[in-house]
Amino acid sequence: MSCHILKIDCSDAKGLIYKISDVLYANDLNIEKNDEFVDNENGKFFYRALISGEVDVKKVTTQLQEIMPNDVNINLAKKTRKKVIIMATKESHCLGDLLLKYYSGELNAEVVAVVSNYDYLQELAEKFNVPYHHVSAEGLGRVEHEKRVLEVLKTYPCDYIILAKYMRILTSDFVKEYEERIINIHHSFLPAFIGANPYKQAFIRGVKIIGATAHFVNDNLDEGPIIAQDVINVNHEYSWRDMQRAGRNVEKNVLSHAVELVLEDRVFVHGNKTVIF
Amino acid sequence: MSCHILKIDCSDAKGLIYKISDVLYANDLNIEKNDEFVDNENGKFFYRALISGEVDVKKVTTQLQEIMPNDVNINLAKKTRKKVIIMATKESHCLGDLLLKYYSGELNAEVVAVVSNYDYLQELAEKFNVPYHHVSAEGLGRVEHEKRVLEVLKTYPCDYIILAKYMRILTSDFVKEYEERIINIHHSFLPAFIGANPYKQAFIRGVKIIGATAHFVNDNLDEGPIIAQDVINVNHEYSWRDMQRAGRNVEKNVLSHAVELVLEDRVFVHGNKTVIF
Amino acid sequence: MSCHILKIDCSDAKGLIYKISDVLYANDLNIEKNDEFVDNENGKFFYRALISGEVDVKKVTTQLQEIMPNDVNINLAKKTRKKVIIMATKESHCLGDLLLKYYSGELNAEVVAVVSNYDYLQELAEKFNVPYHHVSAEGLGRVEHEKRVLEVLKTYPCDYIILAKYMRILTSDFVKEYEERIINIHHSFLPAFIGANPYKQAFIRGVKIIGATAHFVNDNLDEGPIIAQDVINVNHEYSWRDMQRAGRNVEKNVLSHAVELVLEDRVFVHGNKTVIF
Amino acid sequence: MSCHILKIDCSDAKGLIYKISDVLYANDLNIEKNDEFVDNENGKFFYRALISGEVDVKKVTTQLQEIMPNDVNINLAKKTRKKVIIMATKESHCLGDLLLKYYSGELNAEVVAVVSNYDYLQELAEKFNVPYHHVSAEGLGRVEHEKRVLEVLKTYPCDYIILAKYMRILTSDFVKEYEERIINIHHSFLPAFIGANPYKQAFIRGVKIIGATAHFVNDNLDEGPIIAQDVINVNHEYSWRDMQRAGRNVEKNVLSHAVELVLEDRVFVHGNKTVIF
Repeated sequence: MSCHILKIDCSDAKGLIYKISDVLYANDLNIEKNDEFVDNENGKFFYRALISGEVDVKKVTTQLQEIMPNDVNINLAKKTRKKVIIMATKESHCLGDLLLKYYSGELNAEVVAVVSNYDYLQELAEKFNVPYHHVSAEGLGRVEHEKRVLEVLKTYPCDYIILAKYMRILTSDFVKEYEERIINIHHSFLPAFIGANPYKQAFIRGVKIIGATAHFVNDNLDEGPIIAQDVINVNHEYSWRDMQRAGRNVEKNVLSHAVELVLEDRVFVHGNKTVIF
Repeated sequence: MSCHILKIDCSDAKGLIYKISDVLYANDLNIEKNDEFVDNENGKFFYRALISGEVDVKKVTTQLQEIMPNDVNINLAKKTRKKVIIMATKESHCLGDLLLKYYSGELNAEVVAVVSNYDYLQELAEKFNVPYHHVSAEGLGRVEHEKRVLEVLKTYPCDYIILAKYMRILTSDFVKEYEERIINIHHSFLPAFIGANPYKQAFIRGVKIIGATAHFVNDNLDEGPIIAQDVINVNHEYSWRDMQRAGRNVEKNVLSHAVELVLEDRVFVHGNKTVIF
Repeated sequence: MSCHILKIDCSDAKGLIYKISDVLYANDLNIEKNDEFVDNENGKFFYRALISGEVDVKKVTTQLQEIMPNDVNINLAKKTRKKVIIMATKESHCLGDLLLKYYSGELNAEVVAVVSNYDYLQELAEKFNVPYHHVSAEGLGRVEHEKRVLEVLKTYPCDYIILAKYMRILTSDFVKEYEERIINIHHSFLPAFIGANPYKQAFIRGVKIIGATAHFVNDNLDEGPIIAQDVINVNHEYSWRDMQRAGRNVEKNVLSHAVELVLEDRVFVHGNKTVIF
Repeated sequence: MSCHILKIDCSDAKGLIYKISDVLYANDLNIEKNDEFVDNENGKFFYRALISGEVDVKKVTTQLQEIMPNDVNINLAKKTRKKVIIMATKESHCLGDLLLKYYSGELNAEVVAVVSNYDYLQELAEKFNVPYHHVSAEGLGRVEHEKRVLEVLKTYPCDYIILAKYMRILTSDFVKEYEERIINIHHSFLPAFIGANPYKQAFIRGVKIIGATAHFVNDNLDEGPIIAQDVINVNHEYSWRDMQRAGRNVEKNVLSHAVELVLEDRVFVHGNKTVIF
């Protein structure tokens, strides 16, 4: 049985759920599961449904467009395995976790390439038969380096780019190429400790909890829409290196979880926030 | 603006969401929020909606009944403040927390009475102007004691009975009088440590996490449908009395949370499980 | 059997634990439990012990002083029930929780007074027979208001002041009067969302976790040494008022926990951090 | 600078910490960190210290033995990298996580071999250059199979055996060979859901939290001393397979954490409990 996912967002109005249900019912489709959310403050409607039956994507989309508000975004597609590129720098824990899940079949995606500004992780990627591209930034300005990275990325059509502890800041131009398609893991409980070495910042501040945040990347460093966060307890015995060590598990778990949500088409981006069903 | 809650459960079938939406739309009602769940294993459909507009309860219910499967349960009612009776024994933390929330307006219910097998908590209840009934069990068999308790309870029409550390086991007959309407807090992470003194059991077993479980009461001790659970970390330094002390906060928080869910009509009982929207 | 608590901090040096143990042993005292921590970065030693036996406080203190580094702070005292003043504004949940624990005997302290800039909580304090002082800030400058508050506070000798959602910023001069003796609850996971209305800030940022932080108050708003923190999950369905509502339980639990740690003499303040045994 | 770990357990008596400190001081050794715990109920004393300086292991041990109670166990050894064998069956997540940490240097141990009753994980182990032994149980009784497994294990001297989802029950005789040296991960929050398919049991019971437990293996299935536990929230939408999927992260994290504690010599076994510093 084929299974489709329908994602809709538009201005809120009366009867939207009825209207959507009506179209689906008229097309002899069954709603296996649906979620909706109305952002009353901004008058926005979000809807996601898992649909079973014989879906004529074009026909259903057109019929929905006709009856929904003008600003509607409709995304109706068969559930498929997405393609992802993973970017990393030197640390292996996030990359390794994703590769392991890819290898075991737990990751509902194909990892088409790993791209890094160092060669440290090449061996690891190759263990899992994933092409590895080392694009050194040595002696290059940010723009020139990104140009070279983009050249590599362009050879791998992909749905999402996962920054698995890629430790370089991306320019606006780079981000624009993959708008709302770059997922980053930041090693703090954002918005605490934005920027460099958050564990050192956390240590200096003397917090009793540290965390990690997975978010879409936008123009502003560490300010993109948050997808997932998690935390662990620490105490005065933790040096900042202990925090870093302990934080690695949180980082990889939060990133994995966020990636899973995105791959299942559960995430809507809405300004600098997310709606997640 | 009036706000109604619609709860439906029935056998699963095609197009149920459409059919419900259709009736609501035809009655010029708006779905502010809806949740549904299909238990595929048992072929059961659960639905809850927050509805705004002028609701003709009888008419809408009838129309829904006509188009839904025969075994449908429909509950359409205006959002109202429920009435609850709290039963307790000697410990004050759960009762106190509920009374404080009742006092501050946080608890969306009226506490109509406190009933206890001891008089320890009378002063506390009276601080919050809630009638207190001490029904001693001294020298009485279980059935005779329950008879006297029931006599008191019957004088206070109520929607739910909250067992806020009421330390007596209830008979089947008692439970039947308030089927799916008695909420209990058990001081363990069920199904671990069923029965008496779970903290002592936890201590003896040497667990590293303890918890609490709020559940509806049914015939089998500590086996009713679970509404909410939470846990905290412990270690070898905790005596069982330390666990008991630390557990109190979890107990009161879990019970409060479960009561809130029930009072908002978010909970369906389904065999010995719950579906919570 | 009398039980004493010994707290020591000083520059780190070789053999400190031996030297302390030696003095205690020579005085026929038994160490029921001891904890130590060396902050290697700053070369500081922290020590806390629970001691049983007949303690001659003056003699033991003198002997310890003689053999420890010159900058040593020694605090040896019988375990006693401390006195606390609670300050609050309008919200009752933190105050109520502390009063309930005071009433049930769970709080290891005497609540000698409640002081507030409003009269909202008077009824609640009086339910628990605690003197309530309403010191209105209406028409007063910060300094003048604090002067009046201090006049009231001075009539109640106390060990600690607990700010249980006291919503006014304190001046340096006020803080100096009760250095390292004022415990505040901030309704965010500090250092995220410093300042006014952290729930609104959290809502706008779209975080998936919110929290609360209990800390000692120093000169810088929300920057004092952190004692305890905790968090809960939220999602896109939470308005900032929902976050505020959900956050209340975290606030009261974190504050209660921090107060308990302080009352048991488990907390050392060390720059803008804490060491907690 | 060499660093040693000293572990002591014995009957409790007065002045033990003094006596230990005295010996260490007399040998010109410094206590970098020490932890102790007295189990008052059983009159047992536990002590662990990190010691710096030139340690004459034999001399210090002898001196300690002379002054401590007769039943003392003293373990004084240089901090070293231990050797471990990992046993697994078909699931790769726990094994993979440990191998990744071994590869990156995060695991403070050498993985000397992987032993399995299937060949599923051979490829994975070999990616990380760890010898893999497939000892099929097909057609063999438990005792005969274990005999063959033991033959393989004996060729690899090791400190600990890690059961990373090894799905066979071990006999008493097997366990005796590696007493208090076998660490298992059980996929439930023990003691809930002992035995086969705990996720199915959890699903049927309708719990709102699932967990995992790492413990030393003793004679009684799932009843050995617990080292670490953790949990995650689930809800009615989770099938038991969803719980299984979600539980994998908890399993691997809990196992990793327990292994880390054991490898750092932080864990004492004490009856069917652990004391962890």
